[in-house]
Amino acid sequence: MGTSARLRRILEAPGAARAAGAQDALTARLVEEAGFDVVWASSFVTSASRGLPDMSLLTMTDYLQAAQWMARATPLPVLADCDTGFGNRLNVALTVRSHEEAGVAGICIEDKVFPKRNSFMSSGQRLEDREEFAARVGVAKEAQRSPDFVVVARTEALIAGSGMDDAIGRARAYEAAGADAILIHSKYERPDEIEEFLRRWKGSVPVVAVPTTYYTWNIEEASRAGVSLVIYANQTMRASVQAVRDVLLRIRAEGDSASSEPDMAPVKEIFRLTEADTWNAIDA
Amino acid sequence: MGTSARLRRILEAPGAARAAGAQDALTARLVEEAGFDVVWASSFVTSASRGLPDMSLLTMTDYLQAAQWMARATPLPVLADCDTGFGNRLNVALTVRSHEEAGVAGICIEDKVFPKRNSFMSSGQRLEDREEFAARVGVAKEAQRSPDFVVVARTEALIAGSGMDDAIGRARAYEAAGADAILIHSKYERPDEIEEFLRRWKGSVPVVAVPTTYYTWNIEEASRAGVSLVIYANQTMRASVQAVRDVLLRIRAEGDSASSEPDMAPVKEIFRLTEADTWNAIDA
Amino acid sequence: MGTSARLRRILEAPGAARAAGAQDALTARLVEEAGFDVVWASSFVTSASRGLPDMSLLTMTDYLQAAQWMARATPLPVLADCDTGFGNRLNVALTVRSHEEAGVAGICIEDKVFPKRNSFMSSGQRLEDREEFAARVGVAKEAQRSPDFVVVARTEALIAGSGMDDAIGRARAYEAAGADAILIHSKYERPDEIEEFLRRWKGSVPVVAVPTTYYTWNIEEASRAGVSLVIYANQTMRASVQAVRDVLLRIRAEGDSASSEPDMAPVKEIFRLTEADTWNAIDA
Amino acid sequence: MGTSARLRRILEAPGAARAAGAQDALTARLVEEAGFDVVWASSFVTSASRGLPDMSLLTMTDYLQAAQWMARATPLPVLADCDTGFGNRLNVALTVRSHEEAGVAGICIEDKVFPKRNSFMSSGQRLEDREEFAARVGVAKEAQRSPDFVVVARTEALIAGSGMDDAIGRARAYEAAGADAILIHSKYERPDEIEEFLRRWKGSVPVVAVPTTYYTWNIEEASRAGVSLVIYANQTMRASVQAVRDVLLRIRAEGDSASSEPDMAPVKEIFRLTEADTWNAIDA
Repeated sequence: MGTSARLRRILEAPGAARAAGAQDALTARLVEEAGFDVVWASSFVTSASRGLPDMSLLTMTDYLQAAQWMARATPLPVLADCDTGFGNRLNVALTVRSHEEAGVAGICIEDKVFPKRNSFMSSGQRLEDREEFAARVGVAKEAQRSPDFVVVARTEALIAGSGMDDAIGRARAYEAAGADAILIHSKYERPDEIEEFLRRWKGSVPVVAVPTTYYTWNIEEASRAGVSLVIYANQTMRASVQAVRDVLLRIRAEGDSASSEPDMAPVKEIFRLTEADTWNAIDA
Repeated sequence: MGTSARLRRILEAPGAARAAGAQDALTARLVEEAGFDVVWASSFVTSASRGLPDMSLLTMTDYLQAAQWMARATPLPVLADCDTGFGNRLNVALTVRSHEEAGVAGICIEDKVFPKRNSFMSSGQRLEDREEFAARVGVAKEAQRSPDFVVVARTEALIAGSGMDDAIGRARAYEAAGADAILIHSKYERPDEIEEFLRRWKGSVPVVAVPTTYYTWNIEEASRAGVSLVIYANQTMRASVQAVRDVLLRIRAEGDSASSEPDMAPVKEIFRLTEADTWNAIDA
Repeated sequence: MGTSARLRRILEAPGAARAAGAQDALTARLVEEAGFDVVWASSFVTSASRGLPDMSLLTMTDYLQAAQWMARATPLPVLADCDTGFGNRLNVALTVRSHEEAGVAGICIEDKVFPKRNSFMSSGQRLEDREEFAARVGVAKEAQRSPDFVVVARTEALIAGSGMDDAIGRARAYEAAGADAILIHSKYERPDEIEEFLRRWKGSVPVVAVPTTYYTWNIEEASRAGVSLVIYANQTMRASVQAVRDVLLRIRAEGDSASSEPDMAPVKEIFRLTEADTWNAIDA
Repeated sequence: MGTSARLRRILEAPGAARAAGAQDALTARLVEEAGFDVVWASSFVTSASRGLPDMSLLTMTDYLQAAQWMARATPLPVLADCDTGFGNRLNVALTVRSHEEAGVAGICIEDKVFPKRNSFMSSGQRLEDREEFAARVGVAKEAQRSPDFVVVARTEALIAGSGMDDAIGRARAYEAAGADAILIHSKYERPDEIEEFLRRWKGSVPVVAVPTTYYTWNIEEASRAGVSLVIYANQTMRASVQAVRDVLLRIRAEGDSASSEPDMAPVKEIFRLTEADTWNAIDA
């Protein structure tokens, strides 16, 4: 079974599955080893990793490459955050084909205007026209070659302040257009918006949630509320930044890394994670 | 003053300067903020980040791209670990030109046979012929366009077990061929080899050391022993792996990220590190 | 003198200089050898070369890479056709920095809405708001690091059917915003529109023309009319397609390439164009 | 049926099939339209297209990208010329996986030492050890995921001057190691070497020939002699260089492109070749 079929099965299974955002292929392996079901290739994380804010500055080529390295590194399905689809319907079609070809299990596109801004930024949240975005979802589904490839439609209605009715209306339009799942995004500190959405939404496709701001929401609650996939989208990068900064400051202050050694994976652990023995065996 | 000139000045200043290996452009910013002098674009870290062991599997194109993102993200000089130079003298020339063009301040090439294996792997440490490698150093210096671009010659004599006499002889040959600095690598758990090398070596170019295994060696000791640059080559990635794994396991076990929040940089901190405000101002 | 300074001098010199579009780095060498002054990295040609129509399907990353290979291959200044700037003002800023970093001498951006369609396509020619595009030109000029880097503003007013007054008004607005030159595009079969524009335009920056449809317009006429640079934008690719098809059909029909040999450059000529001897000498 | 299966069928069918080398994706379409069976992604052509001689200067990443654009542009199987496999057995394994993932139908690897030189260059033709190369062929076959992916082993014994016995011995060793076909290369002006090889060779896998120097050898003769695939490896690029140079010189001398128009495909023909209508229909 290919990764797209597995992602589809994960989304459709009862209860809430778990995805975690990876900052690179090595993190994707850590996500796999920690028992998550799906790797999320976050555009926020990928652009930050390249030193750029999440404002449609990296290109589809850049994001695709990042997601592809992840897909090569783990058998877990990789779901790629493809922002707005990088332009119009044609760009959406090319985005689908390129990601499918690269071994990515599915993509997520959101109903904002290109170029977009990160959903947690206070300004610049412009929604795309609902019918136009629904048409893009349709184009995405037409463009895929394998019937299993997954297209998640993400509505930013709550992010952009257009209200719950619009969120529900958009989700229904995207489902009607063929979306395999709906991602409902909220930046509220509590899960209230998401829970209200889930109560009112009567659709039949799976719903995905991203508890970045409403981080106290437990997977059990999410599951009971009807979420099919919870994405911990940027926690790995945020943990990494904090730990790397701590170790750097300590090395800088102390003049050596001796006291930091217990806080760092050994070199041999990196060898194991990158399967050095397997590669070595090819040459034996 | 360009970054190559700054790297040159850092190498030639009295006392030991500090470099830290970055796993991506975001880490390069953390290296800068923590007060280091130089960013090291490690081939071990870059290949691990893409899920591959450090065995010449990634190409020059891949390594160059990683170093270039770092150079774009920080005003610090980036010194790129270019393994063996990726082939013969022609490949070395192309490596120099490509990295110089990309805004990288200098490169380091090592005297092992391509394809190489990571120096901490137990097998497969084959040294290149001394005269051939000296010729490659000369070709590298001929290939650079700016007089400031830095070429560091790294000898793996102690890694490959060919002894201190060979290490000294090689370092001298590489200096004679035009190397701007010598990197002497050791995998011994104590700095004894490095210190012996520094006592016996009578060259005039700066010496670089990488205390991965002899991590108790303090910058003050390194400085007194005559080192010009200490590279903490892979600590950021190792810190990241440990922290990311911890947070992932906790999120997996607890079902939410609430208890991990204090261990993660906030989203706004990522915005700051990627200069979101500066980019936003372009659109104002 | 860098390539940007040379491009600036070429644009400002009396009379009309000549640019030719290259389909790859090898073609850039042919452009140089044939005595042209500038290499044009055409988005139409680059996207066609990758099998895609000129509809903003390739990304900035793709176009940049194509232009960079050309810039590496020839001392001639490379002027890169950067479509609309690939998004909003932020994308324009990144486009400028990326191309400048890559050794490209200048860029040309056009006042259509992203994603654009090729100017010779009958539908989908939507103009960007004049003030917004002028602001983008200003952002481009702010973003460049070297004072010499060239930003050409191209107006598609005549292509989109908004009339000569609009073309003139836009050109003036873009000059006021800092454009180093104005490219006025026309798809009329005769140079009448261009000549009218040149008569009415009272600006002081150089004007660039692209005689694809009005191909009978001679360089002497263009020069007298006040053009500073004539771009033969896609002739190399079109010549290549015709010749390649002829040879392929002949080989297919005849069963060998014997009769085609006189119509093909010898292998040794390719060696010469790629400077095989120079590279070989590095290894001697 | 996937492209690898089709390539396999083409190789195994009676008589000689035809491949032509493409210089880019657009050329791949021309190869398809002219009735060839296979697209050859030549390392000579790809490196020349980027302005570099065929001396292992481009990386596997560069070659892969070129072959992938071709594979996207045509339903014909693309057979990628992968030089020596870019290093040791590990590099061969990665080369196979990367190309298979990219939709390339098969690869060809040759028994020279990395970095290699083009076979038509007079010096620097060093053969790899026969057993080592046979082991690489075995590794390539182990690395592929689909049973259909094709690995062609190319012997340069005649190029390097080691004689017909060595050529035969190597071909047999590579067949025994699992090669799906043998490419026998000759730079003699007549097909005598190839014909002698075919008479003496008693293997059961298909044989591939590349009549660059012995270009009078007709497909009918090749077929009778027992060749399964004839590759016209670089004719498209050589035709392109000649035609592009002619048109450039004429435009330069005449001051316009009027007299060259009959020698160039019209712009609308480029639109057709890049399927502009199909893409436009997505937006309708």
